[in-house]
Amino acid sequence: MNGNNNPIGVFDSGIGGLTVLKELTLKLPFENFIYVGDTARVPYGTKSKETITHYASQIIEFLLSKNVKLIVVACNTVSSNSLNILKKKYKLPIIGVIEPGVKKAISITKNKRVGVIGTKATINSHTYKKFLKKEKIKTFEKACPLFVPLVEEGWFDNEITQLVAKEYLNDFKDKDIDTLILGCTHYPMLIPVIKRVLDNVNIINSAEAVSLETEEVLFKNKLLTNNKTKGKVEYYFTDLTELVLEISEKILETPLQNVNKIFFP
Amino acid sequence: MNGNNNPIGVFDSGIGGLTVLKELTLKLPFENFIYVGDTARVPYGTKSKETITHYASQIIEFLLSKNVKLIVVACNTVSSNSLNILKKKYKLPIIGVIEPGVKKAISITKNKRVGVIGTKATINSHTYKKFLKKEKIKTFEKACPLFVPLVEEGWFDNEITQLVAKEYLNDFKDKDIDTLILGCTHYPMLIPVIKRVLDNVNIINSAEAVSLETEEVLFKNKLLTNNKTKGKVEYYFTDLTELVLEISEKILETPLQNVNKIFFP
Repeated sequence: MNGNNNPIGVFDSGIGGLTVLKELTLKLPFENFIYVGDTARVPYGTKSKETITHYASQIIEFLLSKNVKLIVVACNTVSSNSLNILKKKYKLPIIGVIEPGVKKAISITKNKRVGVIGTKATINSHTYKKFLKKEKIKTFEKACPLFVPLVEEGWFDNEITQLVAKEYLNDFKDKDIDTLILGCTHYPMLIPVIKRVLDNVNIINSAEAVSLETEEVLFKNKLLTNNKTKGKVEYYFTDLTELVLEISEKILETPLQNVNKIFFP
Repeated sequence: MNGNNNPIGVFDSGIGGLTVLKELTLKLPFENFIYVGDTARVPYGTKSKETITHYASQIIEFLLSKNVKLIVVACNTVSSNSLNILKKKYKLPIIGVIEPGVKKAISITKNKRVGVIGTKATINSHTYKKFLKKEKIKTFEKACPLFVPLVEEGWFDNEITQLVAKEYLNDFKDKDIDTLILGCTHYPMLIPVIKRVLDNVNIINSAEAVSLETEEVLFKNKLLTNNKTKGKVEYYFTDLTELVLEISEKILETPLQNVNKIFFP
């Protein structure tokens, strides 16, 4: 028997995790969600593992105070640095963004040659490579540091973004990859631009993989809601500028309601 | 009588302040310098005034422990948020990056129409506008959020950077400005690209204005060195990645020596 109507917690260092939230609300429209974006302390990528774990713990404790039944870590940096520690520390189900994307890539690649793009921090951690190596998959990694600021500027698909994508992704052309993992939650906004450069490659949007995994975990733990009307989303940001709201609306393709500011000491 | 051979402290939230250091070492080649780049906590632009002042105080206290005789705040965010507080708190001469650029613009503009470009944080603070308004100068402000990541990627002058510059700076074309202030220490690396878009406009590189001001203040306070050989530069970064070193060398056009890592709790 299911019927747990508590919300699902979703968090990111900033607004990139909204691509994950968007997929989750499409896949699980009757669930309630609470999104936390730590926009005051973004980016996490340059911070130490200890600091990242501390920030994530503060957010999780806030989400627990809101009685969430499951948490999605919609942030590659937290997922690659702190997921195991957080899973040990807290009792509820916690889902990261990395393993669902990896699983999907393993199931889809035919020639076992996979590309991964992400921020400098994610790529330098070689997290994806380590997972894929276990499955004897040859991995090609490439950091794309301008992709996040381009998305945060709202330039999802223009001439400049296309040129940047070409510059970064041309490296993959002679690597014969058949699958590319988007290793950053901002990147799904750039899929049209990426597809124009790598037209014969399967693009793995981790957000989709994460929402499938979330549904599965909720089902297995008998935590799916029995609500039959559209769920509610509440937003909490640690810094709330006009630009945060503007880009968030562009990502979600809808105006944000129930937006709050929150402070972590 | 001069003859104070203690070093000059220079600091920034990251590596942008190296453009200021570069001008200082050209203008004052016999002085010793200590540069602090807070690369672990960059960017400051999204942080609160209290946090920015706290971070800057930690850096200044470190510089004082190294017996610096003067401090250059080579960071627009700290200069616009915290300079007055820091000047009251510490006794040695402290020079920011904003007023020297403003003074230069006032002296150079003929039609009293000045443009200012900077990060979102600097532009939203309207610091430049407030200073220039006192002199009855009409100010046009424009945030250029992609300029910093482009410089940090090392793309100082390529097709993409040129297109981004055109996109941002075209706004100034019908404003009839005769002077443009670079309100961010990263931007001097983009001068060739900026000049191609705004070819009849005086570009104010605050780094040059700051080095002139520094020489003046040292002279007035009888603090100029009597050393007659090339001075030494020591570098301290709170996070020390390959990219930090790579881009720092591109900005300074020379390999860095005496590089240290430092931690602020």
